[in-house]
Amino acid sequence: MPYVNRDGVNVYYESLGQGLPIVFLHPWSTNRYIWANQLMEFARSHQCIVVDHRGHGQSDKPAGGYAIGEMAADVVAVLDDAGIERAVLVGNSIGGMVAMQTNLDAPERVIGNLILSSGTDFGANSPPEVAEAIQQDWRGFFSGLLNAAVSEKSKAERPEILGFMEGCFRVDDNFTEGVFFASVADPNGVFNWNISDRLKDITAPTLIIAGEEDGATTVEQNQFLADNIPNSEIKIYKDVAHFCQLEKPLVFNEDLRNFIAGLG
Amino acid sequence: MPYVNRDGVNVYYESLGQGLPIVFLHPWSTNRYIWANQLMEFARSHQCIVVDHRGHGQSDKPAGGYAIGEMAADVVAVLDDAGIERAVLVGNSIGGMVAMQTNLDAPERVIGNLILSSGTDFGANSPPEVAEAIQQDWRGFFSGLLNAAVSEKSKAERPEILGFMEGCFRVDDNFTEGVFFASVADPNGVFNWNISDRLKDITAPTLIIAGEEDGATTVEQNQFLADNIPNSEIKIYKDVAHFCQLEKPLVFNEDLRNFIAGLG
Repeated sequence: MPYVNRDGVNVYYESLGQGLPIVFLHPWSTNRYIWANQLMEFARSHQCIVVDHRGHGQSDKPAGGYAIGEMAADVVAVLDDAGIERAVLVGNSIGGMVAMQTNLDAPERVIGNLILSSGTDFGANSPPEVAEAIQQDWRGFFSGLLNAAVSEKSKAERPEILGFMEGCFRVDDNFTEGVFFASVADPNGVFNWNISDRLKDITAPTLIIAGEEDGATTVEQNQFLADNIPNSEIKIYKDVAHFCQLEKPLVFNEDLRNFIAGLG
Repeated sequence: MPYVNRDGVNVYYESLGQGLPIVFLHPWSTNRYIWANQLMEFARSHQCIVVDHRGHGQSDKPAGGYAIGEMAADVVAVLDDAGIERAVLVGNSIGGMVAMQTNLDAPERVIGNLILSSGTDFGANSPPEVAEAIQQDWRGFFSGLLNAAVSEKSKAERPEILGFMEGCFRVDDNFTEGVFFASVADPNGVFNWNISDRLKDITAPTLIIAGEEDGATTVEQNQFLADNIPNSEIKIYKDVAHFCQLEKPLVFNEDLRNFIAGLG
């Protein structure tokens, strides 16, 4: 059974392979398919877990409960259900936020983190026009955001990346308007979640990967994570924006492999 | 529940989106992740179904029962379970064989076919060395076959394609040695299945896509399908081998979109 039920919410996950466990956590509005270039390759030597966050993909989409802490508790429930004591967490964007929160709430379950294009306290410097644009046409807003989240080179050479992303938030079976607005409104949801003062408490080794062209979570936002998480380093890539695992899969996979090897 | 149970075998599938249904059928040894570049994009305007064939991915892996006809019956069971009367079938390699068999067994369920790099009667001209190589080291044999199934350009620019493929048949949670040998031995399995004399009975509109560099199912093998399926046409692409949906996703998606539009 690929579901774990936590407090009445079914969270979908898949487990493939054996070895040191890796949990892959996808960005907001997408789903586990974003890890296709990692899943089968790393499952040769690792137990790979891909999760659909609540509100996404094959997981339930309750009316509320989209605090990052809820999603982190889902990850712990998945680890329990899969019989995994400790895992490497790989999180992109909101997936990185979920990973960081899991470090704070259940540090004993985390071996290390690869945080790909993420941040904290997104809402802090958000101008009022953003809130207005979201209310008027959230899909239009999201489309613009995604357009700024894929590098020019990727847009030219791998236009299917935007095709995948656009589909993800326009297909109700994957992600709904209700999930979007419940997440935005949540006092600890994607925009309001702020662990700036607690980054220092993340003790597991952490690699942060950022893309120079990322207009969704900027280099500065990722640098802030690196500056405040004690045992961390950052890598910044050219010709990459928000989705290194799709835009430069080979580079990303090599970084992940080396990071895990370095965990001893 | 994303499973349908047919005669005790759980077959995994996902349904996303609404509209004219499309069923995506993956190649031997792989799984539904191969359709990541199609699934979310087409789900914007279609009900997209991705299936893990029995013996693959999240589906059960019984000791036997790997006739192509069994997999075609699984597809019909999925259509029933999803409440779909008729669908466009998109099948790659063994997925194309399953699609063609579904046309023969349940023509009333098929609107049209996009057969991507497939064929029939593969075992016919297979030299005895192949059988010997398979017995000695099936994964080595398979690795060589896959290497000939990705174009030189794709290998240079999209090396993650081979990474995905190699993982698929080396991860027991996805595909096992038992499934491999049971499929090879089946009198109507992947190598022995032969509908050469029945291709003429496939009446639904059919587009065949082949890659010039395909060393797994050659242009000639695909041309044979086009020559014998009455209402068919063939497109042959440069710089593409066996996996156009990964090697040239945009071209493939455009072909699929135009093909469906033409079904009117």
